[in-house]
Amino acid sequence: MIRTAASRRHVLHLHHGYSTAGSCIVRAFRTSTVRLDQRAIVYSKNGDPSSVLSAVSFPDLPPPAPRTANVRFLLSPINPADINVIEGVYPSRPSPSTDLSSDASAVFVAGNEGVAEVLSVGNGITHLKEKDWVVMTKPQMGTWVSSRNVRIEDVLKVDSSGLSAAHAATLTVNSPTAYNMLHDVVQLKEGDWVVQNGANSAVGQAVIQIAASKGVRTINFIRDRQVRDNVESLKSHLKALGATHVATYDELSDRAFKATFASWTQGKDVQLGLNCVGGKTTTLMAGLLGENAHLVSYGAMSKDPLSLPTSLFIFKNLTCHGFWQTRWYDQKTLDERLQMMQTLTGLIRGGKACMILPMGVP
Amino acid sequence: MIRTAASRRHVLHLHHGYSTAGSCIVRAFRTSTVRLDQRAIVYSKNGDPSSVLSAVSFPDLPPPAPRTANVRFLLSPINPADINVIEGVYPSRPSPSTDLSSDASAVFVAGNEGVAEVLSVGNGITHLKEKDWVVMTKPQMGTWVSSRNVRIEDVLKVDSSGLSAAHAATLTVNSPTAYNMLHDVVQLKEGDWVVQNGANSAVGQAVIQIAASKGVRTINFIRDRQVRDNVESLKSHLKALGATHVATYDELSDRAFKATFASWTQGKDVQLGLNCVGGKTTTLMAGLLGENAHLVSYGAMSKDPLSLPTSLFIFKNLTCHGFWQTRWYDQKTLDERLQMMQTLTGLIRGGKACMILPMGVP
Repeated sequence: MIRTAASRRHVLHLHHGYSTAGSCIVRAFRTSTVRLDQRAIVYSKNGDPSSVLSAVSFPDLPPPAPRTANVRFLLSPINPADINVIEGVYPSRPSPSTDLSSDASAVFVAGNEGVAEVLSVGNGITHLKEKDWVVMTKPQMGTWVSSRNVRIEDVLKVDSSGLSAAHAATLTVNSPTAYNMLHDVVQLKEGDWVVQNGANSAVGQAVIQIAASKGVRTINFIRDRQVRDNVESLKSHLKALGATHVATYDELSDRAFKATFASWTQGKDVQLGLNCVGGKTTTLMAGLLGENAHLVSYGAMSKDPLSLPTSLFIFKNLTCHGFWQTRWYDQKTLDERLQMMQTLTGLIRGGKACMILPMGVP
Repeated sequence: MIRTAASRRHVLHLHHGYSTAGSCIVRAFRTSTVRLDQRAIVYSKNGDPSSVLSAVSFPDLPPPAPRTANVRFLLSPINPADINVIEGVYPSRPSPSTDLSSDASAVFVAGNEGVAEVLSVGNGITHLKEKDWVVMTKPQMGTWVSSRNVRIEDVLKVDSSGLSAAHAATLTVNSPTAYNMLHDVVQLKEGDWVVQNGANSAVGQAVIQIAASKGVRTINFIRDRQVRDNVESLKSHLKALGATHVATYDELSDRAFKATFASWTQGKDVQLGLNCVGGKTTTLMAGLLGENAHLVSYGAMSKDPLSLPTSLFIFKNLTCHGFWQTRWYDQKTLDERLQMMQTLTGLIRGGKACMILPMGVP
């Protein structure tokens, strides 16, 4: 009963409707409010997304079974990791679905994050009703889809008051990564410093805002831009979000930077570094950290390894960790996840974080 | 009153008397039992030891002041880090002494480790008597010296029964490094696995023995030798110490090694890796570690940085630490240091660790 309407163009041009600020922009598609065929972006084998993705259509969902709900996706971001999942190079994998293929072979529905509104609920559900917003609590649920049936334990209700759909759609990956890295490793106090690279990534911008909301000061590294104005514009943007200082990797690489850094921190040891880049500039950034500091890596956008002089570990007692929000979800209870969500939505409503400012930078 | 008898030859040829097994051998000099002039190996500026070290003579010590003791060194090892201290590239530095120079300018007495016997004690000392053995509890005390006056709080008494002077002289650096790395980071149980490189270093051999005494199994990596027999002889030596498996870095680099490793561990996750080498082979060794493992670095003999794919941190939750015995001493009470010493001497007396076996390898 399922029509396959595979088309590379469908995927690439369909429903581009939204992007947040930042160089690591959230590209999302919006399902039309005019009822069309239900559609899903699927793949049956891993590879280059432009080769392996296809759009399939499927009929309207049947009424939901007990303790499940039918939901309609409002916005589903494309995060960089989603591409890696489709390529098959990411440790998280979706479960295969046999409902959406024309020949009963398994396909994977792409997409990890998104906000959906409830269309209808099955018996046994009292805390969700039509029009409520929900986000996924389980990774790799498949969110690049018009609508789907979900189990009650796989979604969390989000109070939509004061939130845009864009806020809600981007609540489960980048903002909690920023929040948890700032809280789980080091007990930061007002006036403490944090250094980070990839500072204009979605996580980086959330780090700036969440840190600023606690009075924690940030030193933020970004790539250089060929056009000088663009660098200044990006610096202004990050400062408007709450960044204390912003410097480019070129500035970081300059011998004079240590003195600049010392004048900023006034000799106060920096206890936390956040890394999503790797490679040489991360080595330099790690050298800025103080005694007993922690370097937390959550990405490797340069694709270069993390390379650090052993002396930092031995003599400065550096500790290096990784952070993966997927593991955090695995280790936490539903209540803990709900509490995190409420903390983040509270920050958004208070204008403290996940604010989306105009960038002015291409 | 102090005669300077500077001579490069003095330092290089004087009193070579002892070496323990291992490639990272402990080279030590023995002060003669026939009373000669008191001598010290000193330097007034940092640099290549063969250029900056000199031997100075000084008169017999005056009677000890209250709460101090005069001690005569029996054996003082030369550890690799001692060279770095003299070069001025090590974070620990000795305090300058003005007693030993001919013109009252400051000199540094070299040497960090050693065993001394008590010659005489000042008033207020009841727990030490003549002929007792002591080791230093403070780094960089200056141990390459015939005799010196020490404050009571800067030495720990060692019960010499069942110990050789070589055992006692090497109690404060390498063995505690091995012991603490095996106990402070991961709670190892009988049957657990540890991987390490530089396995024939003094620390590495202590790791093998201390691990074996707890029923912890070790996979030990060593450099290749040009003469095949030497590799086999070294492997046999380490196995005689208690090593479960020994492999060369060449073997580690071979694609087939993963299968060998899996056959050894039977799929059991390795939770602890110990590194004193850095560079490419450490990257390979880190790849053998299981989920949530810890890699502890205590040296960088290759002088190459520790370079690790970020994915190990993010997806396998690897944590990287450093270990520095000097910091351990800084953070511990005298009682805790004494307890450590007693644990180690207990292992030695029980024939469990710090055993010195004939090497048969050049």
